[in-house]
Amino acid sequence: MPSKTPQITLHHLNKSRSERLFWLCEELELPYEVKVWLRKPIRAPSELKTIHPLGKAPVMTDGDLVIAESGAIVDYILNTYSPTPPAYSLHDSYFSHYAEGSLTLFLQMGITFTGSASMAPWYIKPVIDGFVGKVKAGYVDGQIKMHFNFLEEELGKSPTGWFGHKEEPSAADYMLLYPINTVISDPSRVSGLTVGPRLQDWMQRVKSRPAYQRGFERLKEEERKAKEEKEKVEGGEQTVAVEQAGSGTASTMKSKL
Amino acid sequence: MPSKTPQITLHHLNKSRSERLFWLCEELELPYEVKVWLRKPIRAPSELKTIHPLGKAPVMTDGDLVIAESGAIVDYILNTYSPTPPAYSLHDSYFSHYAEGSLTLFLQMGITFTGSASMAPWYIKPVIDGFVGKVKAGYVDGQIKMHFNFLEEELGKSPTGWFGHKEEPSAADYMLLYPINTVISDPSRVSGLTVGPRLQDWMQRVKSRPAYQRGFERLKEEERKAKEEKEKVEGGEQTVAVEQAGSGTASTMKSKL
Repeated sequence: MPSKTPQITLHHLNKSRSERLFWLCEELELPYEVKVWLRKPIRAPSELKTIHPLGKAPVMTDGDLVIAESGAIVDYILNTYSPTPPAYSLHDSYFSHYAEGSLTLFLQMGITFTGSASMAPWYIKPVIDGFVGKVKAGYVDGQIKMHFNFLEEELGKSPTGWFGHKEEPSAADYMLLYPINTVISDPSRVSGLTVGPRLQDWMQRVKSRPAYQRGFERLKEEERKAKEEKEKVEGGEQTVAVEQAGSGTASTMKSKL
Repeated sequence: MPSKTPQITLHHLNKSRSERLFWLCEELELPYEVKVWLRKPIRAPSELKTIHPLGKAPVMTDGDLVIAESGAIVDYILNTYSPTPPAYSLHDSYFSHYAEGSLTLFLQMGITFTGSASMAPWYIKPVIDGFVGKVKAGYVDGQIKMHFNFLEEELGKSPTGWFGHKEEPSAADYMLLYPINTVISDPSRVSGLTVGPRLQDWMQRVKSRPAYQRGFERLKEEERKAKEEKEKVEGGEQTVAVEQAGSGTASTMKSKL
């Protein structure tokens, strides 16, 4: 049995890769707080650097400990709070590293390519768009398709239908949730992709687990509250700005809110 | 003591990230074979897919086992062949995932951006080059600089000067060798980078280890042999082609060599 009392806070950035951590905490029935950070407008807010110097999400804290990097967070939670700490497993180790080191690399590259192209000045934008589109379709999407075929084959080798080859989901499955779900929930982001039946079935089995459903509901609810709070603050800012209009102090008031 | 007899082959692609595996095998005094794959001209040769379906390097085999993904290979070797298998360590787990999942991501992005730009047709190349250069300098290089500052700070927290906080190098250090050495050996690839004194010292300590030196010598020697072999084959091809010139069979002969 775990000897430590969890004091976990998940720092979640909207539209990011922390869904897997909500799922894991729910599977282990761990209590956890959630702090939602909203993108400004597309990147993580710089205030996240007060939690971890790299300013990236997800990050978790557990008492005084601050842990970044999805793979390390999953490792830490499983080693600290599993009823029996997991023994070394080649499948878990492989897919944990693979999920971020190989598969997500190409998703991220696609996002950065497209995001960069959108920032090009108007007079070169058509040329840049055309070029980026070609690199993405020709190289990045081709790589993602190869990876999805590979994952389909790998599932065929698992006696249990889980990537970790265990009776229940393990590190491999938690880590693969983000890249697989990102693509499956919007296959149009990868041109010409067909998702195989084993992967479809894996996704279905994950989504039918009560722990996944609780985690997903919690994530949505926390995001909803954070957005509502933000709108309230911004609504307040606007009221103050209107009241002070003409007095030249609106921006000062705003910065104090 | 490890119960298994190693039958390791490291599949090494020239100009890639397998140096860390040579170092690790030498530290553990493991016997290993090396198979060198030469890039064609910049990407891994498609024949690498006969070893692992994704066709990436490094890959290692150990008897019937085939293992890809640097982090998983380091994990496997340490768990299978260390005199005492390593216990869970937050620092090792963190930096193992971080090395490929965060730091190398930006190095890879820089390489892919620049490589893609070089393939642009001549009539748009100046525009593409200018744009890619701006994205690289403004975003990618900025991220790498932030990471190098972070690593410098992290070394300051280690009581032993190793990233794994242990008396000797551990998974964290093996995994960080590739991205740190790639940048330190050619800092001009990141505009405006200053490498801090602790990182310089870490690099020096790694390079002064006899195991690192043996691994590096072995890598260079195996690459040299592979290139010599390739030149011999290509030289042979040319001789055959010249002998058959005019007979229309040169290409057939070549494909049989």
